[in-house]
Amino acid sequence: MKGYHKKVLAIELTERKTSEIPLDEELLAKYVGGSGLGTRFLMDEADGSTDPLGEGNPLIMMTGPFTTTPVTTSSRHSVVFKSPLTGIYAESSCGGFFADELKKTGYDGLIIRGKASSPLYIWLTNEGVEFREAGHLWGQDIFQAHDRILEETAPRAAAAVIGPAGENLVPLAGIGHHGRHTRLAARCGGGAVMGAKNLKAVAVKGNLKSDVADMKALRESIRGLVGQIREATLPMNERGTAESVASNEKKGNLPLKNWYQGRWPEAQKLDGSVITETILVGKSGCRYCPIVCGRRVKMEDNPYGPVVESAGPEYESIGALGGLTLVDDLAAVVKANELCNRFGLDTISTGSAVAFAMEAYEKGIINRKDLDGLELTWGNGKALVEMVKKIGRKEGLGGILGQGVRSAAEAFGGNSVEFAIHTKGLELPMHDPRYYHSQALSYATSNRGACHLAGNCHSHESYLHFEELGYKEPFPRHQLEGKAELVAKLQNYNSLIDSLITCKFLQIGLITPTHHLEWYKMVTGREISLDQFLQIGERIYNLKRMFNVRCGISRKDDTLPPRILTHKRRGEGLVVNMPHLGALLSDYYEYRNWSEDGIPTIEKLKELGLEECL
Amino acid sequence: MKGYHKKVLAIELTERKTSEIPLDEELLAKYVGGSGLGTRFLMDEADGSTDPLGEGNPLIMMTGPFTTTPVTTSSRHSVVFKSPLTGIYAESSCGGFFADELKKTGYDGLIIRGKASSPLYIWLTNEGVEFREAGHLWGQDIFQAHDRILEETAPRAAAAVIGPAGENLVPLAGIGHHGRHTRLAARCGGGAVMGAKNLKAVAVKGNLKSDVADMKALRESIRGLVGQIREATLPMNERGTAESVASNEKKGNLPLKNWYQGRWPEAQKLDGSVITETILVGKSGCRYCPIVCGRRVKMEDNPYGPVVESAGPEYESIGALGGLTLVDDLAAVVKANELCNRFGLDTISTGSAVAFAMEAYEKGIINRKDLDGLELTWGNGKALVEMVKKIGRKEGLGGILGQGVRSAAEAFGGNSVEFAIHTKGLELPMHDPRYYHSQALSYATSNRGACHLAGNCHSHESYLHFEELGYKEPFPRHQLEGKAELVAKLQNYNSLIDSLITCKFLQIGLITPTHHLEWYKMVTGREISLDQFLQIGERIYNLKRMFNVRCGISRKDDTLPPRILTHKRRGEGLVVNMPHLGALLSDYYEYRNWSEDGIPTIEKLKELGLEECL
Repeated sequence: MKGYHKKVLAIELTERKTSEIPLDEELLAKYVGGSGLGTRFLMDEADGSTDPLGEGNPLIMMTGPFTTTPVTTSSRHSVVFKSPLTGIYAESSCGGFFADELKKTGYDGLIIRGKASSPLYIWLTNEGVEFREAGHLWGQDIFQAHDRILEETAPRAAAAVIGPAGENLVPLAGIGHHGRHTRLAARCGGGAVMGAKNLKAVAVKGNLKSDVADMKALRESIRGLVGQIREATLPMNERGTAESVASNEKKGNLPLKNWYQGRWPEAQKLDGSVITETILVGKSGCRYCPIVCGRRVKMEDNPYGPVVESAGPEYESIGALGGLTLVDDLAAVVKANELCNRFGLDTISTGSAVAFAMEAYEKGIINRKDLDGLELTWGNGKALVEMVKKIGRKEGLGGILGQGVRSAAEAFGGNSVEFAIHTKGLELPMHDPRYYHSQALSYATSNRGACHLAGNCHSHESYLHFEELGYKEPFPRHQLEGKAELVAKLQNYNSLIDSLITCKFLQIGLITPTHHLEWYKMVTGREISLDQFLQIGERIYNLKRMFNVRCGISRKDDTLPPRILTHKRRGEGLVVNMPHLGALLSDYYEYRNWSEDGIPTIEKLKELGLEECL
Repeated sequence: MKGYHKKVLAIELTERKTSEIPLDEELLAKYVGGSGLGTRFLMDEADGSTDPLGEGNPLIMMTGPFTTTPVTTSSRHSVVFKSPLTGIYAESSCGGFFADELKKTGYDGLIIRGKASSPLYIWLTNEGVEFREAGHLWGQDIFQAHDRILEETAPRAAAAVIGPAGENLVPLAGIGHHGRHTRLAARCGGGAVMGAKNLKAVAVKGNLKSDVADMKALRESIRGLVGQIREATLPMNERGTAESVASNEKKGNLPLKNWYQGRWPEAQKLDGSVITETILVGKSGCRYCPIVCGRRVKMEDNPYGPVVESAGPEYESIGALGGLTLVDDLAAVVKANELCNRFGLDTISTGSAVAFAMEAYEKGIINRKDLDGLELTWGNGKALVEMVKKIGRKEGLGGILGQGVRSAAEAFGGNSVEFAIHTKGLELPMHDPRYYHSQALSYATSNRGACHLAGNCHSHESYLHFEELGYKEPFPRHQLEGKAELVAKLQNYNSLIDSLITCKFLQIGLITPTHHLEWYKMVTGREISLDQFLQIGERIYNLKRMFNVRCGISRKDDTLPPRILTHKRRGEGLVVNMPHLGALLSDYYEYRNWSEDGIPTIEKLKELGLEECL
């Protein structure tokens, strides 16, 4: 099978040595790469008793068969680990240049184990691996450390770096990338896992591409599609992912005031169009990407502190740092976003935590004394920026908020659990399940906790539909019948996508399961049917669930915060229609052939070739 | 105001002394009696920190203004306390002869405080109170102790007695009554509260009836309605409450196999008609009741042990001890029922606990060794009977099950939380919320945990409707719109009923809010409107909620077990239609003018004259 180097590098930090793990074809055929293969390794390395911040938790960084090939958006990697935020399965995926450089070192991925006795970083090329002392980098933010590491290694290297948040073992910490394209593998606390390993960074550069079975056909296919992708995703190219902030607020998809409020026309001030007109200095994209959704912004005279040229806030970041907190001052949101990128903080979870604290402050559960005098009121941009710093530095109340809202609610007490908005410990992303009912079910069941990308299904309730999955048009948002099947199919499919790996935005570019199957055949040379292809996704999705089952996850955890299930947001133009989660789950387990408790049945595991999980 | 003695007796067990608490008219007007007045006292005596089994938890036994009057079914009393099973508000009501005799001692109720240094019982007449040593009764079951106490006091006295379960502080223990009409104030663990006070029994007898404002009119009203009541409730008179076992199974209202199974025609073997044809030796009713729903059964040659003449199993008891366990052997169910009456165990919670253990056994979470060799399989009558004994004796695994399924699931671990069927720690009664959607909401929100009587609303989705509440016909079972309002109105109304007090079966006898209002006026002489009358119920319902708010209850607790929300029972003739709890709750809080977190708003509390709760 082509498309792979057929080996991963195991790195033992404790002993500072490495070994190669060969990958056989059966394994590759079953789990593909990315988070699929990553989960397969995680199953061997960790279980319910593994301490996420202990030496036993591996940090698995995987590329996919498409990485280094001409497949568009394929320079993505997946980080797989047990989450210190949720205590369960975690994957966090990231685009940019890292995946490409990593795979060009001659490995399909890394399994990083143990803990270094002192801070270090890894410098990996196809010539070998070096363990380098990182004492001088410890304490530096991601931008600083990244630039320094490239100085010390190679200017065109790519580095996965943690900031102070990761060093401080903050469970909201992600793993950052800077330079040509500032990006974070943000969700679930991978940065803290790195920090717990005393691992400041992984820098990679190589020149070994994996083979492609039919390069000519692949090049032709990609060439033939680039125009279509570019056209369909043009608004994102023109105004970034934030282009839909205002329209999502209007229709009721953007969460506001910690998921309480119905309308907030001030969102317009944070829309991509405003960013474009005011602070944009350029665009940036991942390697091999025709979409180029990334923004470069710069605000030297930002009243909340200067913002150097780096990634502008994405839709999700604006929703969390702006919508949830009602901060309509773009300068504050941009600064908070830059701070998250520097500290290495997940913007979704960080914004959620600040909004949670704002509500606790409003309700008198915490006070100014707890906040070192900060007036943590709705819409207060200064308070937002200061709280982000406190979270990154694990300072004062920031130390509690950095544990995520589930944990913070336990610490705060006083009914705050009622407005701690998470599923399985992961804060909800910025698509309201009361608007897109498919996301109600998908947030409730996604393997890493509330995740919009695991199903990516909201698009299929608005403008997308996959004929290969049996849909001739987008699915009605409020139709219950058949909704669970749609969600399960899309979760399976996106599990496959996260293993291949391509970007979810390709789906907006009208790239279908058939396109992906064709590319898979062209890259690997492996001839399989569409059904077999899609079944890989189902296998991987079930494997992830089985890891969670080991961690004690079952139906009881497949739920949504009470506010999402019961609170009606009202406002001009909004139609109230609460998602019927019980019925959706009922259909879902049935469709998946899971037990009524949400555990994959033996029959299903056998069908998927997952007997090893029994 | 007539209808009252206007005083309650406070009994201090620690000091073995008593005092009278006068009741002013405003208090009576606001809280009426029964559990309304009882809750008012509980608010003064206990809070979130009160240990339910500590000296600080009062045991409040209240009658109502109708008690001792000719109002039919009025010989009921309400026991109010903080529950050792749920940790929150508890009331448990009971018919028979106790309420009548209690009120005839010249008191509207008792507040029993503290803890006796050694076992004793109280003997109260209108001549005074005696604290009598009960060392010789300790360890006796309710039947034995009851008979002995009547020998020691007066043959026509009434006694509230605990059995070994209460003595053993089993949270499933109720407070029993025997003799002419075997009954338990069963739910929520009042028996354990008595046991913790070293109080074996309260025996009462008196001859002081309270005044009635217009006795002539009252007598005429009652006389004019008795025929109607008798006719409408005739099936219950003829075949007891168990008359509907078979029909409820058929339509999908009887829960089966720990709420998992859809159909079970074997239920027919436990139907009231079979009891009538085989083991019935007589009927029994509460004082002043024309319905006479109680059965007297006797099975001297019962293979599970002889059953002396006493109460036959009710619908709820058969559902829990038979339906949930799939035990279709009437002899086993009757013996288990008698044992519950002797030990003083709530049949609903006990049957639920045994069924829970059966499922844990089936799933290998517990084994024969844990069960001292017992084969705790579905349908095993012997195992059922033995487990009831173990629960009553706090013996082996029975000690865990006797804490209720919520607690047992914590002890068992291994996913058993998925089939621990309770709300707020109270096991669900035998009306399936997947059949009656009104009960889905009512179970989720009822103040003592999952309760079918707090709303008594399932009847209003089948054959009843109250024009006074705005309904011209029974409410469609699966209609969402307006359902929350129906439930809230019925919860309010039944809170009033539990304060007056009459039996819920009068509603089956087509007795309406207007009838109750008329009786209230005739008894008390107080002229109020229907709106004012109904508002009393709302006030009391909110007051109970406020006690629970003190205990940390909020929206997060207003839920149903995942199995009820997501598991479809299938079978011949069953229509699958899952209750949409999120939407129901959303409407409910709105109708009640509670916050979205399920806390009564200041506005609502003021409207109801509950400023004291602020």
